[in-house]
Amino acid sequence: MTFEGIFTPMLVPFDSRGAVDEAELRRLIRWLIEKGAHGLYPNGSTGEATRLTAEERRRIVKVTCEEAAGRVPVIAGTAEANLHETLDACRSYAELGVAAVAVVAPFYYRVAPESVYAHFAEIARNSPVDILLYNIPAFATPIDGATVRKLAELPRVAGIKDSSGDVAAMMRLISSVRPLRPDFSFLTGWDAVLVPMLLIGCNGGTHASGNVIPECLGRVFELARAGNWEEAVRLQSRVLPLFDAMLQYFEFPDGFRAAAELRGFSFGAPRQPLTTKQLEQRQLYKASLEPLLSVLVPEPTRLPYSPES
Amino acid sequence: MTFEGIFTPMLVPFDSRGAVDEAELRRLIRWLIEKGAHGLYPNGSTGEATRLTAEERRRIVKVTCEEAAGRVPVIAGTAEANLHETLDACRSYAELGVAAVAVVAPFYYRVAPESVYAHFAEIARNSPVDILLYNIPAFATPIDGATVRKLAELPRVAGIKDSSGDVAAMMRLISSVRPLRPDFSFLTGWDAVLVPMLLIGCNGGTHASGNVIPECLGRVFELARAGNWEEAVRLQSRVLPLFDAMLQYFEFPDGFRAAAELRGFSFGAPRQPLTTKQLEQRQLYKASLEPLLSVLVPEPTRLPYSPES
Amino acid sequence: MTFEGIFTPMLVPFDSRGAVDEAELRRLIRWLIEKGAHGLYPNGSTGEATRLTAEERRRIVKVTCEEAAGRVPVIAGTAEANLHETLDACRSYAELGVAAVAVVAPFYYRVAPESVYAHFAEIARNSPVDILLYNIPAFATPIDGATVRKLAELPRVAGIKDSSGDVAAMMRLISSVRPLRPDFSFLTGWDAVLVPMLLIGCNGGTHASGNVIPECLGRVFELARAGNWEEAVRLQSRVLPLFDAMLQYFEFPDGFRAAAELRGFSFGAPRQPLTTKQLEQRQLYKASLEPLLSVLVPEPTRLPYSPES
Amino acid sequence: MTFEGIFTPMLVPFDSRGAVDEAELRRLIRWLIEKGAHGLYPNGSTGEATRLTAEERRRIVKVTCEEAAGRVPVIAGTAEANLHETLDACRSYAELGVAAVAVVAPFYYRVAPESVYAHFAEIARNSPVDILLYNIPAFATPIDGATVRKLAELPRVAGIKDSSGDVAAMMRLISSVRPLRPDFSFLTGWDAVLVPMLLIGCNGGTHASGNVIPECLGRVFELARAGNWEEAVRLQSRVLPLFDAMLQYFEFPDGFRAAAELRGFSFGAPRQPLTTKQLEQRQLYKASLEPLLSVLVPEPTRLPYSPES
Repeated sequence: MTFEGIFTPMLVPFDSRGAVDEAELRRLIRWLIEKGAHGLYPNGSTGEATRLTAEERRRIVKVTCEEAAGRVPVIAGTAEANLHETLDACRSYAELGVAAVAVVAPFYYRVAPESVYAHFAEIARNSPVDILLYNIPAFATPIDGATVRKLAELPRVAGIKDSSGDVAAMMRLISSVRPLRPDFSFLTGWDAVLVPMLLIGCNGGTHASGNVIPECLGRVFELARAGNWEEAVRLQSRVLPLFDAMLQYFEFPDGFRAAAELRGFSFGAPRQPLTTKQLEQRQLYKASLEPLLSVLVPEPTRLPYSPES
Repeated sequence: MTFEGIFTPMLVPFDSRGAVDEAELRRLIRWLIEKGAHGLYPNGSTGEATRLTAEERRRIVKVTCEEAAGRVPVIAGTAEANLHETLDACRSYAELGVAAVAVVAPFYYRVAPESVYAHFAEIARNSPVDILLYNIPAFATPIDGATVRKLAELPRVAGIKDSSGDVAAMMRLISSVRPLRPDFSFLTGWDAVLVPMLLIGCNGGTHASGNVIPECLGRVFELARAGNWEEAVRLQSRVLPLFDAMLQYFEFPDGFRAAAELRGFSFGAPRQPLTTKQLEQRQLYKASLEPLLSVLVPEPTRLPYSPES
Repeated sequence: MTFEGIFTPMLVPFDSRGAVDEAELRRLIRWLIEKGAHGLYPNGSTGEATRLTAEERRRIVKVTCEEAAGRVPVIAGTAEANLHETLDACRSYAELGVAAVAVVAPFYYRVAPESVYAHFAEIARNSPVDILLYNIPAFATPIDGATVRKLAELPRVAGIKDSSGDVAAMMRLISSVRPLRPDFSFLTGWDAVLVPMLLIGCNGGTHASGNVIPECLGRVFELARAGNWEEAVRLQSRVLPLFDAMLQYFEFPDGFRAAAELRGFSFGAPRQPLTTKQLEQRQLYKASLEPLLSVLVPEPTRLPYSPES
Repeated sequence: MTFEGIFTPMLVPFDSRGAVDEAELRRLIRWLIEKGAHGLYPNGSTGEATRLTAEERRRIVKVTCEEAAGRVPVIAGTAEANLHETLDACRSYAELGVAAVAVVAPFYYRVAPESVYAHFAEIARNSPVDILLYNIPAFATPIDGATVRKLAELPRVAGIKDSSGDVAAMMRLISSVRPLRPDFSFLTGWDAVLVPMLLIGCNGGTHASGNVIPECLGRVFELARAGNWEEAVRLQSRVLPLFDAMLQYFEFPDGFRAAAELRGFSFGAPRQPLTTKQLEQRQLYKASLEPLLSVLVPEPTRLPYSPES
């Protein structure tokens, strides 16, 4: 099974006590599906997986699978700090019904390519569910092209999610892996270059922006599939300033939380504490997102979204 | 005047005494024009400008303008290490008939954005010819987007040649500068992402690969202009392994020299000395370029090119 | 209380089933104390804290405190991926009797200095035990000097363990913090520059090499304290090639494991899996450590250490 | 001949027309010698060699040799952008009477270690005067330790000037080269770590700060030679904030120019143009250097220095 389209790595709402706000999370998931998300991606970097406990992560995957209810596929992220706990997660997420698990490369320690291979090979040999390699050099050990090529020989390795944003590197990957594995999924995780990545052959993307403007990313994907590249670029160029602002002025992923608040969701206080000064700045920066958002989504924002009403 | 198409930053042939081989250079230029180069770019990084004397650089620009003879525009690079000598070069290249001068940002010293602005503004105010900003972060101080935006207010600043290869950064530049300056030229210098760069709105590129496969880069440009993006990507994906090999296994730009030798040109010993070990490896690496080249250019290679015969 | 001397971040032995080998760990700790370690440091980066479960980490601290039995102070590392679990660790380690807890800066996500402050301030306000800031830019968000200075105003912040190896940066830190907090502990974690760090005013160090050559690091510290700097440098210059080899040819901290095996300890298979090729190379690299070790410790190596015999 | 002590890489004063102010340069040199500089170093990075013409550089070396008049040795920097012009400089500086030439590694292009070797070996085989390898990774291709070791086999290679500030790397260099070449000169170029560098065996340093506080650096060197390391560190720790401020708030080397102005010298407008905003800030930043300077040099500053009066 090749994963196609835009998968949304869902933000995690917290309640007033700091616990995961499950009701709001379900509301977000239902809205995303309604707005056309092609798949869901709990426990990604956007989902602040490392800031949750293992139990919370498991619960979030369960909730996601329940809400998806088979309508869209679920790829669950794992960001456990070691191999043993990663395999535990693979097993329990498999039981919950995910289509695949996206496994981040070793983090904290930066290891050699040979060790990156050993890490993923061990997981691939023992996981009961397909895995995607998750390359995010800003946060974890990079997975180089030669290592991806070797790992693609293992049947359980079903694809890659690449958040480097390196268009040429993705072209090299596709050239070296696709002839061997036509089913291999190439997903970009860098919202800024979604259109170029689709042009050079990616199957889709997993985008934090999908929490904010799911209908726009869906439209970009449709335009690209229809070969309407110029129109796709025009839309992408309006997405870019919003994406940049959400990244630049906030701690990741708080800018995406702020923007999704403008669409009617409530996320509560973040787990990464902020100083008083940061909280004041957040108000200003959030306000600056409004005009960037309004050129993308004409509908009124900031009204609480309520799918039942 | 907006610069459109593929400009070739010509390699410089040396003779057995180590001097610039002017006859071979003229032969190369004539071949490039015949093969469809849209413009010429003497004294770029590919042209090893900093390894030449000021007098040699001036001579190369003269030869280029003579051979171009008005058929294609000439953009001359300047890579003088200081402002005073850069302005001298601007003046003498203007007299020789270049369409513009591409000025590299301050190198050796890495200076702040404010100083990058001061440097280019001083040149723009005193140059008798249009200048392109030359951004090549691997070799010189980066020119950030905000600085390009401010410099675009100066009439003499006519465009940018960007060798960073950062597709999203180019999209940001085009969004911020083109509304103000519809005539501003956006040229990429990173062969690996020519098609994505054209897709997002670049006017063309200046590519070291143009010395080796001018007909392929010209074809890529035509396909892109015709909106045949999928076919352009297919061709680009065959260019990429050759480009990678020319960069990876050789000191820049010696890989491009080795490949152009396979097309019938003779470049002599490089100015950057090589050890015996490196010279032996060069033979092996050069041989490895042949199959990568032969999938791109069906005609026999390695026969001495002789346009007169 | 200011921490003085060489603290050893203990390696963790595993048994044939991959579990923590508690008996061997106790043997290592007893040997370290016998050889003159001034303090113990369980759950450091050398102790592969992130590759253990929270329960294993707790158990290791318990074992360490039991073996130390008040003879030397224990600083327990925390490398939990989030604030909540870090505070849990602080509380349980405090109950086990540690003198302080060394808290790594946020990892995986790289956060801004203001957020680094918020993170540590939140911990400092809620921890029942003193904390040391653990700066290790290779693995986690850097803690810049201005942030350390601000955090030093909080009474619970008792010192810094700095593994950057930047001598000038440490000099700046000491100049800015010591006048305000004469009790603040400055510990270096970069074995290569222990002597220069002691010269410029560090109170001591926490060194992975301490697992291998505890007597040498102890001697370096004594020489420095006695003002015998030239002799200290001579010893340091013999430590350096061993340290370099342990880092360069192995995945961290496996080189330190290999060298400590030469002193009679048994560590079992590492938690980070290795390929067959890596395991073969490990044998060669381990053999190359022997001559580097033998110039430092004249006693026979490789005989199983047995303190009882 | 081994170079010992503090060599000053002189700043270059310019007159109101932008030309080198030879009279002021001579005044600076005489003052430096009077204040105890152990040697002079024209055309270093501090001397803005790349911002001068070849003729200006030659003139500055001539002036320096004349003023030194054999009282202190002169090491002339070369920062020509290519090998041919570097050798021209070696020859003409040799005729002017320099003790050695310090040759920067290839810049603009970043080349492989093998090519760094080929570059320096070619110069060493053809230079009529001893050369020092000049390692300054911030501005030019790094010269790695193995390459230094191989180059030290060539008799003309007489030493290294290292501006990386990496104390451990210097210790490795000394360990590998000194047994082979006891006469080899190890000079640090990073003012922040002069004392640690002397402790681990450097013969001296070449320091931009020497233009500002020559008497302090001389005193640091004497204290180190006398084995009074603690006092040397105390003095170094007062030099550090001044050094940091001169680097941080100005374009290099303008902070050193501003501070030397406070000692009575006049440098004129810099060759790297500054914006109006930068010129305003320069006044503020220059004022902030005064208190940092006054704790080091008790004598009144800002009065024009006049050795004749």
